[in-house]
Amino acid sequence: MSVDPTVPIFADIEAAAARIKPWAIETPLLENADLNARVGSRVLLKPEMFQRTGSFKFRGACNRILQIPQEDRKKGVVAFSSGNHAQGVAAVAALFGIPATIVMPADAPKAKIEGTKSYGAKIVAYDRQTGDREAIAAEIVSRQGATLVKPFDDPAIVAGQGTVGLELARQAVQLGAKLEAVFVPCGGGGLVSGIALALSSVSPDTHTVSVEPEGYDGMRLSREAGERTTAPARQKSMADSLMAPAPGVTPFALAEKHLHSSITVNDDDLARAVSYAFRRLKLVVEPGGGAALAAILRDAAQFRGRTIAVVLSGGNCDPETTADCCARIPTP
Amino acid sequence: MSVDPTVPIFADIEAAAARIKPWAIETPLLENADLNARVGSRVLLKPEMFQRTGSFKFRGACNRILQIPQEDRKKGVVAFSSGNHAQGVAAVAALFGIPATIVMPADAPKAKIEGTKSYGAKIVAYDRQTGDREAIAAEIVSRQGATLVKPFDDPAIVAGQGTVGLELARQAVQLGAKLEAVFVPCGGGGLVSGIALALSSVSPDTHTVSVEPEGYDGMRLSREAGERTTAPARQKSMADSLMAPAPGVTPFALAEKHLHSSITVNDDDLARAVSYAFRRLKLVVEPGGGAALAAILRDAAQFRGRTIAVVLSGGNCDPETTADCCARIPTP
Repeated sequence: MSVDPTVPIFADIEAAAARIKPWAIETPLLENADLNARVGSRVLLKPEMFQRTGSFKFRGACNRILQIPQEDRKKGVVAFSSGNHAQGVAAVAALFGIPATIVMPADAPKAKIEGTKSYGAKIVAYDRQTGDREAIAAEIVSRQGATLVKPFDDPAIVAGQGTVGLELARQAVQLGAKLEAVFVPCGGGGLVSGIALALSSVSPDTHTVSVEPEGYDGMRLSREAGERTTAPARQKSMADSLMAPAPGVTPFALAEKHLHSSITVNDDDLARAVSYAFRRLKLVVEPGGGAALAAILRDAAQFRGRTIAVVLSGGNCDPETTADCCARIPTP
Repeated sequence: MSVDPTVPIFADIEAAAARIKPWAIETPLLENADLNARVGSRVLLKPEMFQRTGSFKFRGACNRILQIPQEDRKKGVVAFSSGNHAQGVAAVAALFGIPATIVMPADAPKAKIEGTKSYGAKIVAYDRQTGDREAIAAEIVSRQGATLVKPFDDPAIVAGQGTVGLELARQAVQLGAKLEAVFVPCGGGGLVSGIALALSSVSPDTHTVSVEPEGYDGMRLSREAGERTTAPARQKSMADSLMAPAPGVTPFALAEKHLHSSITVNDDDLARAVSYAFRRLKLVVEPGGGAALAAILRDAAQFRGRTIAVVLSGGNCDPETTADCCARIPTP
C-alpha cells in the first residue's frame, strides 16, 4: 500500500494526542436540557473555547511545533491567520521559548489581535483586500530561516485537530451515547477532516458533517465537483475564522474519503447561534465557532430523535459582537 | 443529642442528591490555564451556570418541591425572588405540572423575567422600594393554599444547594486535587452554608469561604457579631442575585459551625469577574454569580501556591450587562 506523506493516517492522530497531552486541555463534553428539548434529540457539545487560547487551534499548532527540529526552533516560527491559529501558534511558541511572527489582517477582531500580542508574538498587519499574506510570510521565512506553520494544509496540523474527534468519541462512550453524527465548523477543513479521520477508526458508524458560512462553502462545492473548488467569497462573512474560500489539499483528500455531508449557514444563522449560546448555554462562542450549532438550531426538525455531537470550535469574540448578535436575534 | 429540625444534617444532602439526580445536571469541574497562571495556584471552577435554568437554584427548588405532599401540589407553589430562585421554582414546577406564581421585583434583569415566563409561571411584579414581597406571597398562600418555596431559609433548600459541595468534592478527588479552600457567592447563605455542611463531612480539611457584595455583607457582619445582623443595604449592588441584607436563620446556624471566613467585593471587582469570565474563561457569568471569582482575581497574591475551588453560581445576565462590564474593565 502506497502512503501519501501529505495525508495523515489514524496513527498520526494517536501520536498527536500523546504529544500534546502535557499542554492541551481535555475539554469536557457537555449536555444542555434546553437544547435537547429544542432539537428533540440528545445533543452533546464539545466546547473547544475552553481549549488554551480559546479555540481548537492550539492542538494543531502544538503538534506541529513540537516536531520542529531543535536547531530550527531558535530561528522562530511564522504564521498567517485572522486570529485563532495566530493565538495557537503564539501560545505554543511562548511555551517553548520560540520567537513567533504572526501576519494578521488589520480588521481582525480586537480580542484576537490582543490575545496574540499577549503571548508575546510579533504582529505584522496587512490589508485583507490589497495585501498578500502568504507572500509576507514567505519573505520572513526566507529572510530569517523561520518555520512556516500553516493554518490547515499540513498533515501535522490536521492530526493535531483530529485529537478533538478522538476525545469526543471516548467521552461519548463514557456518557453511554451512540453518536450518529458530529457537526463541525469548517474553514480550510483542518478540524473537520481530522475529526472525520479519527471517527473513521474509533467510531466508524458516526457521520461527520462540515458546516461552512455562505460564500465560503468551498468544502461543499469541492465535494460536489469531485475536485478542489473555490467559493465566490464576494462578501465578508460574520464568521471571520471560516473565511477560507477553498479547502486545503490535505483536508480535501481526507474529506473525500471520510466526510458524509456539507451544510451552509448564513449570517442570521450564525448570529442566532451566538445569541443562543450566550442566553441558554452560557457559553461565549464566536460566529465561526458556532457554525455547527447554527445548523442544528436552524434545521432542528431534521435531527429529531437522534444522538448527535456539535463542536463549538472557538470563543474569541469581542463583547460588542456578542451584544450585536444578541440584539439581532433576541429570542434565539 | 437533640436535633434542630430547621438545620439540615449531612445525610439530608445525600438524600437531596439522590432525590434530584434524575433532573439536575451534574456540572463539570473546569480548569483554565490562564487563571491558574494568573493566580499562581490550581483553581478549579464549578460552573453552575450550566445547571438547568442557568443557576444552582434549580437544585434546592427541586429538593424542596419533590417533598410537597401529592395532595398539596395541585394548589400550586409560590416564591419571591429577583430571578434565579424564581426560574428554579418555575422550572421544577413545570417539570411536575404544578402551577407556580412568582413575586418578582419590576427591575429584575430581563433575562430573568423572560426565563421565568418561559417556564410557564405566573409573574406578580412589585416595586423593590415600596412593595412587600413577603406579604404579597403570604396573601397568595392563604388565598389558594399554595406552598411557599423560600429562597434560602429552609433546610430542604439548603440541603439541595449543598449537593454542589458533594459533587465538587468528589470531582476534585477524581482530578487528584486536594482542595484547601472553596469560595462561594453568598446572598442569604443557602448555597454557601449547604456547601460548608457537605465539605465538613466529605472534605473536612477544606475551608469554605463566603463572598458577598459591599453593603450586603450580612454574613460577614453576623459572624463577627455572633448573631444575625443586617447589612446597611443602602445602594443597589451590581450583584442583583446577592442583595439579601442578612443571612437566613438556617444558613447562619450552619455558617457559625462550618464557615471559615467571609470576604466582601465591590462593583468594580464584580465587573472584572464578568469581563474576565467572558474574555478568558469563555463563560457567561452574572455579576452575583461571579462574586467568588471576583475575590480570587482581586486578591490573587494571597492564594499563590494553593489548590482552591471557585463556585460560579449563575449566568443569567443580560447581554447589555456583560458588554457594560467588559467595557468597564477591558483588560481584566
